[in-house]
Amino acid sequence: MSTLMKEAKDGKITKEMEIVAEREQLDAEFVRRGIAKGNIIIPKSNRRELDAPIGIGKGLLVKINANVGSSKKICNINNEVEKAKIAVKFGADTVMDLSTGITEKDIINIRNRILSEVKVPLGTVPIYQIALRSIEKKGAIINMDEDDMFKVIEEQAKEGVDFFTVHVGVTKQIVNYLVNHPRMMGVVSRGGTFHAAWILHNDKENPLYEKFDYLLEMANEYDFTLSLGDGMRPGSIFDSTDYAQIYELLEISKLVKRAWEKNVQVMVEGPGHIPANEITRNIEMQKSLCNEAPFYVLGPLVTDIAPGYDEIVSAIGGTIAGLAGADYLCYVTPSEHLGLPNIEEVKRGVIASKIAAHAVNIARYGERASKWDYKMDIARKELNWKEMINQAIDPELAQKIHYRNGTSIDDDVCSMCGEFCALKISKKFLKTD
Amino acid sequence: MSTLMKEAKDGKITKEMEIVAEREQLDAEFVRRGIAKGNIIIPKSNRRELDAPIGIGKGLLVKINANVGSSKKICNINNEVEKAKIAVKFGADTVMDLSTGITEKDIINIRNRILSEVKVPLGTVPIYQIALRSIEKKGAIINMDEDDMFKVIEEQAKEGVDFFTVHVGVTKQIVNYLVNHPRMMGVVSRGGTFHAAWILHNDKENPLYEKFDYLLEMANEYDFTLSLGDGMRPGSIFDSTDYAQIYELLEISKLVKRAWEKNVQVMVEGPGHIPANEITRNIEMQKSLCNEAPFYVLGPLVTDIAPGYDEIVSAIGGTIAGLAGADYLCYVTPSEHLGLPNIEEVKRGVIASKIAAHAVNIARYGERASKWDYKMDIARKELNWKEMINQAIDPELAQKIHYRNGTSIDDDVCSMCGEFCALKISKKFLKTD
Repeated sequence: MSTLMKEAKDGKITKEMEIVAEREQLDAEFVRRGIAKGNIIIPKSNRRELDAPIGIGKGLLVKINANVGSSKKICNINNEVEKAKIAVKFGADTVMDLSTGITEKDIINIRNRILSEVKVPLGTVPIYQIALRSIEKKGAIINMDEDDMFKVIEEQAKEGVDFFTVHVGVTKQIVNYLVNHPRMMGVVSRGGTFHAAWILHNDKENPLYEKFDYLLEMANEYDFTLSLGDGMRPGSIFDSTDYAQIYELLEISKLVKRAWEKNVQVMVEGPGHIPANEITRNIEMQKSLCNEAPFYVLGPLVTDIAPGYDEIVSAIGGTIAGLAGADYLCYVTPSEHLGLPNIEEVKRGVIASKIAAHAVNIARYGERASKWDYKMDIARKELNWKEMINQAIDPELAQKIHYRNGTSIDDDVCSMCGEFCALKISKKFLKTD
Repeated sequence: MSTLMKEAKDGKITKEMEIVAEREQLDAEFVRRGIAKGNIIIPKSNRRELDAPIGIGKGLLVKINANVGSSKKICNINNEVEKAKIAVKFGADTVMDLSTGITEKDIINIRNRILSEVKVPLGTVPIYQIALRSIEKKGAIINMDEDDMFKVIEEQAKEGVDFFTVHVGVTKQIVNYLVNHPRMMGVVSRGGTFHAAWILHNDKENPLYEKFDYLLEMANEYDFTLSLGDGMRPGSIFDSTDYAQIYELLEISKLVKRAWEKNVQVMVEGPGHIPANEITRNIEMQKSLCNEAPFYVLGPLVTDIAPGYDEIVSAIGGTIAGLAGADYLCYVTPSEHLGLPNIEEVKRGVIASKIAAHAVNIARYGERASKWDYKMDIARKELNWKEMINQAIDPELAQKIHYRNGTSIDDDVCSMCGEFCALKISKKFLKTD
């Protein structure tokens, strides 16, 4: 089988590249060149049809991802599908299904429902299903079967999953280092801890690392994209940019190049809990080490004190990361660090992340991104409330806030300033553009 | 009368400077020198007792302000006092009462209730009361009486208002320029439009600008601080860093130096709607032009499309501004651009702004600011939910999210990961610091 990256290297512009170019207002040749070089990806399985392919990377608009999925404590299939739909409605470009419960069967069901009902690129973390299978069949995660690791990935690939997070940088060496050099929060990546526990218990190397070429062969078969997970991402601002994090990044940078050699599209996952002043250097380091492979950031979270409001913490970090060159932001919901998000929190998380991505896109691309703001501003200066509400990122909420407290449809001002509306006075005394 | 700035210039360390230094873990002499140079202010009227004086400026933790106040449409005195109290409870360092209605009597009542019940520095925009008086006595804002402009300021100063926003940079010249060179959103500062309308209708210079020395004399009498308002702040990302905005900043920079010559503490207000990539240059320009006078930013808002979520838009802008050197962030609530905020929205606005300020303080000052995060992280790694909730910026919300869905007080994990808790696995297999 050929892959999208192979086609790009061979100079062929595929339908996917054309669609992405058109949506981004770019030349298809620009997209092709980016894919050939590895700094643009279009995560799309050759087993799956999407509403439209999505491009991520250099020169493209920053994209956002929403995580959904059940847990060992909460598992309602319809609810998780609904979360995926709400996420896409409010602007998620991709969805990851991170289901971990209750049974392996449940998570297969959820994934397949989402694959069939939500036509944006879908990512998963296959080690979750592998761990569940291991618990169900062998009593514990540490008994995970090496063959199962690849078998589950292939099973999911056959279903059409577009990209996989694989914690290939969680090696025996770094895990042993961590045992001898504890950090504040240890390993906070679920997949990372599964691998770390397995490595320590079995005194063996991470099979996904050791047999990375086998993974690449599979990627060639199904043309899925690899997302190289950051199992060592800091889970506390006190662990940020530390030895474990950067050692893993170095390891990953080598695997990026191996993937490219085999024509496999790849992106790199990044931190994590990072003080605001360290974000730019983290992005620049990744970009430099990984030859501009697309960077997918989880947050970053710029403080640890705001569970309940981590969508805001993450929107701050995501914007700074995006300004520095991050390509793809993973949303964080208000319930992060507290529990599984509900539908309303998924929506809030998506909106916060969308605001961050949009702010970056305005900063990077000007008019290519700011048409939406332009429409809002025209409505605003005309005191056209219907259109302001229509253009708002969440029209329903904007409507609710504006029309409470007796503001009527005939009012040309809001309850904040009433007659003292600066725009109204401005309109009367000063012409506006 | 002597002023705090005069004392500082004379080498005297006052009680206020000592308290600020202690709270900031700095040397009192550092604070004194900052005040003498003008890069630190302690806004405090000599007519008022505060729970504690607050320092704003170079080398100090970034502070946040919450605006409260009635409008011509909504006026409930108890509600506005409650908003001020909630704001302080969740971390507002100062409060501004921006009441504009319904009558002049109402806003005098609200201000005096806040002055007596909320003992943090209080700021106002006196032109609002002046405008109301003008409407009540002379039928329209454009009939504002020049003497009243100063009279109202003095009346409020006697009551003990700690700082005043005065739109001294809204001059005849810039207003006429705007008439001939329209911008997207005209003037969006309420006070700015009042002055602009008055200037155009009466063909006269702004009295607060023309008689700035008189304002400084009053400031000497009551030792209030001046906040030089940015009447020309961009109200659209398309107006950002434009001629009108920068011309006004230049004018203000001259007034800063005149204030310092008369021993009056002064800060400068800043934008506004600014694309994320323009924020740093705006802060640096202000710092450079105004010889490091403290910078008080209103937002900045990095996109115009998110009414209902402008607390997030503003937290993003505020963090970037703070990283670049802004000293004081004015909160924005979710109802900005839609209507007067309710109590819940005031709380959300304060929390978003507090997150931004805290993120900046961690970035700037490390351990001086991150002790809170350290306590949270210790609780987190120990899976001590009671303490995690206790340390959260909003414990009530954290409690509610964590314990819904049947998570019990005995559970050591949350509903996100259940047994698959990375911290729990990490604890078992990897020691942590």
